[in-house]
Amino acid sequence: MSQPPEGPDFSIADVAREGLIERPGTEPVPHDGTGRVDLAFTVHSKAEGGADVPPAQRSVRVPPGVTVFDAASWNGIAIDSTCGGHGTCHKCKIQITSDVEVPITRHDARTFTESQLTDGWRLGCLVHATRDLKVEVPPLTTRPKAATVGIGRQVILRPALQKRYVELAEASLADQRTDLVRLTEAIDDLELTADLHVLRRLSTVLRQADFKVTAVIVDEALIDVEPGDTTGSRYAIAFDLGTTTVVGTLLDVGTGTPMAVTSMLNAQQPFGGDVITRISATMMDPDALGRLQDAAGRTLSELTAQVCREAGVDPQHVYEVAVAGNATMTALALGIDPEPLGVAPFVMSAAQPPSVLASDIGLDIHPRARAFFFPALGAYVGGDIVAGMLATGMDRDKRTRLFIDVGTNCEIVLSDGETILSTAAPAGPAFEGGAIRCGMRAADGAIEVIKLDPGAEGDDPAVTLGVIGDVEPKGLCGSGLVDAVAELVKVRLLDSSGRFVPDEDAKEIAPALADRMARIGEERVFILHRPTPDAEPNECVYLSQRDVRELQFAKAAISTGWSLLLEELGLEHRDVQQVLLAGSFGSYLSPASAVRIGLVPQLPVLRIVAAGNVAGEGAKMALLSVRERAGALALLEEVTYVELSDRPDFNDAFVDQLSFTAP
Amino acid sequence: MSQPPEGPDFSIADVAREGLIERPGTEPVPHDGTGRVDLAFTVHSKAEGGADVPPAQRSVRVPPGVTVFDAASWNGIAIDSTCGGHGTCHKCKIQITSDVEVPITRHDARTFTESQLTDGWRLGCLVHATRDLKVEVPPLTTRPKAATVGIGRQVILRPALQKRYVELAEASLADQRTDLVRLTEAIDDLELTADLHVLRRLSTVLRQADFKVTAVIVDEALIDVEPGDTTGSRYAIAFDLGTTTVVGTLLDVGTGTPMAVTSMLNAQQPFGGDVITRISATMMDPDALGRLQDAAGRTLSELTAQVCREAGVDPQHVYEVAVAGNATMTALALGIDPEPLGVAPFVMSAAQPPSVLASDIGLDIHPRARAFFFPALGAYVGGDIVAGMLATGMDRDKRTRLFIDVGTNCEIVLSDGETILSTAAPAGPAFEGGAIRCGMRAADGAIEVIKLDPGAEGDDPAVTLGVIGDVEPKGLCGSGLVDAVAELVKVRLLDSSGRFVPDEDAKEIAPALADRMARIGEERVFILHRPTPDAEPNECVYLSQRDVRELQFAKAAISTGWSLLLEELGLEHRDVQQVLLAGSFGSYLSPASAVRIGLVPQLPVLRIVAAGNVAGEGAKMALLSVRERAGALALLEEVTYVELSDRPDFNDAFVDQLSFTAP
Repeated sequence: MSQPPEGPDFSIADVAREGLIERPGTEPVPHDGTGRVDLAFTVHSKAEGGADVPPAQRSVRVPPGVTVFDAASWNGIAIDSTCGGHGTCHKCKIQITSDVEVPITRHDARTFTESQLTDGWRLGCLVHATRDLKVEVPPLTTRPKAATVGIGRQVILRPALQKRYVELAEASLADQRTDLVRLTEAIDDLELTADLHVLRRLSTVLRQADFKVTAVIVDEALIDVEPGDTTGSRYAIAFDLGTTTVVGTLLDVGTGTPMAVTSMLNAQQPFGGDVITRISATMMDPDALGRLQDAAGRTLSELTAQVCREAGVDPQHVYEVAVAGNATMTALALGIDPEPLGVAPFVMSAAQPPSVLASDIGLDIHPRARAFFFPALGAYVGGDIVAGMLATGMDRDKRTRLFIDVGTNCEIVLSDGETILSTAAPAGPAFEGGAIRCGMRAADGAIEVIKLDPGAEGDDPAVTLGVIGDVEPKGLCGSGLVDAVAELVKVRLLDSSGRFVPDEDAKEIAPALADRMARIGEERVFILHRPTPDAEPNECVYLSQRDVRELQFAKAAISTGWSLLLEELGLEHRDVQQVLLAGSFGSYLSPASAVRIGLVPQLPVLRIVAAGNVAGEGAKMALLSVRERAGALALLEEVTYVELSDRPDFNDAFVDQLSFTAP
Repeated sequence: MSQPPEGPDFSIADVAREGLIERPGTEPVPHDGTGRVDLAFTVHSKAEGGADVPPAQRSVRVPPGVTVFDAASWNGIAIDSTCGGHGTCHKCKIQITSDVEVPITRHDARTFTESQLTDGWRLGCLVHATRDLKVEVPPLTTRPKAATVGIGRQVILRPALQKRYVELAEASLADQRTDLVRLTEAIDDLELTADLHVLRRLSTVLRQADFKVTAVIVDEALIDVEPGDTTGSRYAIAFDLGTTTVVGTLLDVGTGTPMAVTSMLNAQQPFGGDVITRISATMMDPDALGRLQDAAGRTLSELTAQVCREAGVDPQHVYEVAVAGNATMTALALGIDPEPLGVAPFVMSAAQPPSVLASDIGLDIHPRARAFFFPALGAYVGGDIVAGMLATGMDRDKRTRLFIDVGTNCEIVLSDGETILSTAAPAGPAFEGGAIRCGMRAADGAIEVIKLDPGAEGDDPAVTLGVIGDVEPKGLCGSGLVDAVAELVKVRLLDSSGRFVPDEDAKEIAPALADRMARIGEERVFILHRPTPDAEPNECVYLSQRDVRELQFAKAAISTGWSLLLEELGLEHRDVQQVLLAGSFGSYLSPASAVRIGLVPQLPVLRIVAAGNVAGEGAKMALLSVRERAGALALLEEVTYVELSDRPDFNDAFVDQLSFTAP
């Protein structure tokens, strides 16, 4: 691959002002329900001094429509950028080497020559990945002042973690300033405080290093003094501490570059799959809180070790972490008794966890590293949602937007550009494959996409399945469940009350599908996949009448939630300009199916977008910018939490929401 | 003993204003050099509910002239008082039961009837102990709003340690405030912060105690939440962390009452007797710092256990400690490398040690108890001196006052009521008995007082000795050394250059003492005590020519210090209105002898007062009043530290000060 072509220099004047710049042109577009796209990145880099280094290969899987730039960023692959995706900085040059046609925008046309365009050069922030692509990423050329994170959010780099290299005058009888004053007067734009642990090292390090040292600062706390100039090594880790999955991203906060990303299952899994079972564990066994805390610490430690190993970073150079988790995960990681979160009236110990040391949560990084935990709006609208609101700019956008994090507990945020409301809806385990007969997690063998053709003839398939890992289907994950019900409603094999139509009607309505209607015992089922042509129904992957009921209750809980929030603000469905589906499940949900079953308001699917792992993105933003972090804390004041279980009209609204909208 | 007589009620209006009230009438008067007085207290008290309790016997030994009230207070014996010793509150009623005449002041006359006065009733703050006394102390009747500490300092009680009992509304779906908000909104006059450890307990304690809890607060940090009402138990410990001796005073900060006082040798002694040898230990052995830190922690822990045991207080109810120590003791207790304190240019890590937990210095009291360390003005004017300045009101008095803490390192503070200067003079170990041939610490057998009568005849003694413990003399402590030299100068057996006069002259000048002049080898000595009539000189307790030289150098270092400070402010000796001799050594020094050898300015001895253990008193003030503590911190800005070793005129001044003033 050639070096990236030279283009006109970009002036960063227009992003130098503080704050955020919306990047509407590159918001993820809704995908069409056909699954995922694979992006094969070849990442080029230079060693210190400019020598070439063998390129690294990285393959990532994302929902269709995500920009190549975001797909790279979310997966820890750094691409030059200073403008935050307006297409103005013309820095995020990439080369598409797949043999596919990629649209040429006016920005591409200004940036590249005709022959470069023919060679596949494009601006990464303007390429929407709608199919599998091979992407060449040139070496980084700039040291950015801003980074793009979240959903098109441009963050001016102002990390809480700073390093300052200073060369101090040595003490003399005429200058007996204390070591601390000597240092802090050299860094006089900050009001530094030093704790005992720094003072224990300070005099020794100063003298061993001939008074040439690097101050390590988090916010205004001097957490260490290192000999010589170590300003090049300043790292932090953003954690998305999910009930099921935990994701860690190692960031170079000096550049905003994600150095490595990895994820693993939360080691608390053996205590139960959801927050309620884990809270129950602490209520039944006095040792369980300590063991859950340990498990959280182990998980975070393991991820820390992995991202540091992958990026070749010494864990002692990681000085801060940010953790976005729901209220229960946050309490358990901190060793705070979660019981009041689990029983009415659902009260937190504190909305804003105190500032703690990373060692308090079991991390073996720099011994005085700090841990920032996102605050929570309520027992069931936690720090993960606050982080997600930060990443999606819920408090900065003038549009009417609905944010839904679909899961066992579903968090809902509605903003009309002025007022922000939030609530939580107990959707139950259906979306995570729980309580569904053939349900499973979104892992290899899970059906995640379903298309039904009721009138298919000849070789045309009546049932088209998208299966994770492209293997023999073994079960049905959340997005597959929603697709299955939505398609069955669409072809009218399910009526609006959620009941399978009689077999006679089925033959008439959907002749190509009628042979899939069966019974297991007394219960009616729809066969999605037969492992062998003569397999018995209970040997197949199927959707049962009871499964449909489970989904109905789950979606009714959610739609009751946002319906009541809309009502609070006096809004109709059509007033919602954007629906953000968040979380690992929400991002993979088919917007069309979500509309079909009424999980989201009745809107054009183009208004419904997958937002990705916004909790993790928010955690990154908090590490890269103290202003963004302050914004997250300000959300506690700005957002009104609405408790649904307290409302007399909840049950009526719930019953209204149970039925499926007629197709 | 009868109950204390009733008198007219005292209005505290005149002490209710914030701040301090001087109590000039009860400042310690100078003693006459005849040693100590013993006060035998019989302390009466009532149990809860009013039942009588057998009285406690306590004997204390103080310099003559101290008031009975102060003598009691410094030794942890509580006497009622609200006015702080103006003689106006008429609460500090005591009964002197010794068969001695005690002057009746006009305040006594107003307070007691004729027959009560005859029975020995007096106001304790007005009785100066000039001889041994038996004192009856009635039960406490008031819960004071102020306490008398330091040198006549009246401190309005406003301790950093507070307890607040609250009964909170239980949470409900309509009131989902977090546990922390629920608590802090009930204590809305403070901006409380809670750390992780409180949050870990908060929800459990609130619910177990039916939301009736006591908040434990230090400054504005919520350090614990205790079930029920525990406001009656709030204790703190004031430590005077001396290089040689460490004193601990357990205080009830709700009343200002000292509950118990005890002292012990600093367990760092095996590393060396003074700060320099201890600093050297850390420079030669990398493990020594840790061991010195442990030794400091052990000493403070031992004192803690003793005072708690003596007062019957659970150490878990001790929530704060204050530590006044010199810069080296402070650094070692905190585990901070003291090396830069010990070598030029004598630099501290930090003037104000950070706020730490008591557990950081090894104390096993409440796990989140705080430890306040006094700040230092310089490497050799440490936190003990700042505490002493607080206790003596050096920054609040308009008089010109000189504060001298005599010891191996001698700290000197001069204030003219506007400007405050401080310095340190390296006096060497003479005052602690070091480098003196028959030198010893002020322990049993040490000669502490000496009177010479050069013309004694018949049975009149030519040499009168005051010996600690009234036992056979074994050696000479610092005050005895000063007395010995002062008396020898006075009787002219030492000339003004500090040389013993020839034997021939001695016979003429002091016939009764001439037989005490002897030689050990080539060195001339003066025999102070012969164990047997025919003992050889080296079997006696004596003062050698070299001892005199040691004292000369020590006193010259000190007088050079205050001379240069006087010069800085353009003052003469006679301008000094008061000299405060501080520290365990200074308090026992004979003012007359100190004047005689030129250790203090040439002033009437009435202007020279023993100030007692002012470091410990300052530590108590810091625990009883946040305003006083702020005052101590403000001294860092208000006091100018003068480095003597940097001055070109130091050597000339030193030589000038070597000679003894002619008698």
